[in-house]
Amino acid sequence: MALNESIVKMMNHNNPQAKFKLYYWALPFRGCFVSYLFAYQAVPLLMETSYEEINKLRQLDPEDQEIPFIGPPILSDLEANITISQMPAIVVYASQKLGLCPSDPVELSMRLKVIMDCNDLLMEICRYNGSMMWKRENWLEFRNNRLPKWMKLFEESLNRKLVGSVQVDFADIGIYALFGNMIRCLPELEMDLLINAPGIHAHCRRIGSKPSLANFVANEELEYGNLYCGGQIEQSIREMLALDTAAA
Amino acid sequence: MALNESIVKMMNHNNPQAKFKLYYWALPFRGCFVSYLFAYQAVPLLMETSYEEINKLRQLDPEDQEIPFIGPPILSDLEANITISQMPAIVVYASQKLGLCPSDPVELSMRLKVIMDCNDLLMEICRYNGSMMWKRENWLEFRNNRLPKWMKLFEESLNRKLVGSVQVDFADIGIYALFGNMIRCLPELEMDLLINAPGIHAHCRRIGSKPSLANFVANEELEYGNLYCGGQIEQSIREMLALDTAAA
Repeated sequence: MALNESIVKMMNHNNPQAKFKLYYWALPFRGCFVSYLFAYQAVPLLMETSYEEINKLRQLDPEDQEIPFIGPPILSDLEANITISQMPAIVVYASQKLGLCPSDPVELSMRLKVIMDCNDLLMEICRYNGSMMWKRENWLEFRNNRLPKWMKLFEESLNRKLVGSVQVDFADIGIYALFGNMIRCLPELEMDLLINAPGIHAHCRRIGSKPSLANFVANEELEYGNLYCGGQIEQSIREMLALDTAAA
Repeated sequence: MALNESIVKMMNHNNPQAKFKLYYWALPFRGCFVSYLFAYQAVPLLMETSYEEINKLRQLDPEDQEIPFIGPPILSDLEANITISQMPAIVVYASQKLGLCPSDPVELSMRLKVIMDCNDLLMEICRYNGSMMWKRENWLEFRNNRLPKWMKLFEESLNRKLVGSVQVDFADIGIYALFGNMIRCLPELEMDLLINAPGIHAHCRRIGSKPSLANFVANEELEYGNLYCGGQIEQSIREMLALDTAAA
């Protein structure tokens, strides 16, 4: 078996027992908030990552789409014949199926708040899906003020148990999807996290040490390396980080 | 009683029986996804709209905030002593208290998908909270392609009953908060909605005709006029609309 086939099999792309299929670009970024839920619970997940295929679906008229959507991720529940879009909504849907959703409605709302915070920070770092590139001045403001502020917000959320209960749920995995993936792909930012949110850093290590998830992430890394959000905007982030390092 | 006092009273700003308090800028935009839930159910809601007050809260360190948050809206449940941020999370929290949240977990996820779609369109029209102004070329692409695409997506969501069930829920009110408010404040866009999403237009009229909500919106209009998202970005939107009208 060739290496690629082996990876694909480990990632369950072709697992005939899989009852769910995720459509997302060939990188973790926003899709990993969903795929890591499955990986954490060791539940198989089919993954469609072809740019051509996803773009084709995206450009269909809404009436011809499985679910009316603008951009991925989308998730198909193959058994229930239900397809859903919008990352936070998919996370709530999937986590209910996977035993990762709190049953208490207040807890559910608070966990959703955490996911929305994650989503907002993703939007900021990728400059609203690459609609602007980073200028030096904006990046310095982001890295020196805004990013530490976000990190401290998550640290405080952890301190208040808005996330990080004994029973792991989708918000714990979301925090790992955000920061675990961020410092894996952009290791320059690990020290920023350690300084501003040491508890979140430790939390990511704890969540990421679950063997099924650790294995999934290792395979993802084999397939995509340290690819973060992709495109010109990833280049822009990496240029900024290189300038920071050169200036240090 | 002076006119202003009377309006304030009608809007429940000072209602001593209110058990919830919303913090949002003095305009409807993202806050009305929350306030309209209360108005629809005729449940009193205190509203803190002072820029100085909200900005002060926003700039506190996360550990000193009622809930760690970056931007409003935030909602305080005064009885339960719980405060929550992030519009979609607040909507889920409040709608559970107000009998506007579906109990079925699949329906809940689908309604959340609709709210996320609303949230995304808000972000696009206000250019990511005003982080860019509208350039003519981008606006024309938005009004001629992107906005119709969004409107058709919502129309199809209505056709598929992702929203618009017999039992009104938070997504129905979210659709009204998005499009009812948009065409009230930016009436130039009403024809766009009628052409691309006639069902959504009718749905907004239906939801908005609930007397308690209609009264709330009328009072809001007395207080804020047709103020939409505020700031320079609202000026930019209005400039674009004026150019469209001049060119027609």
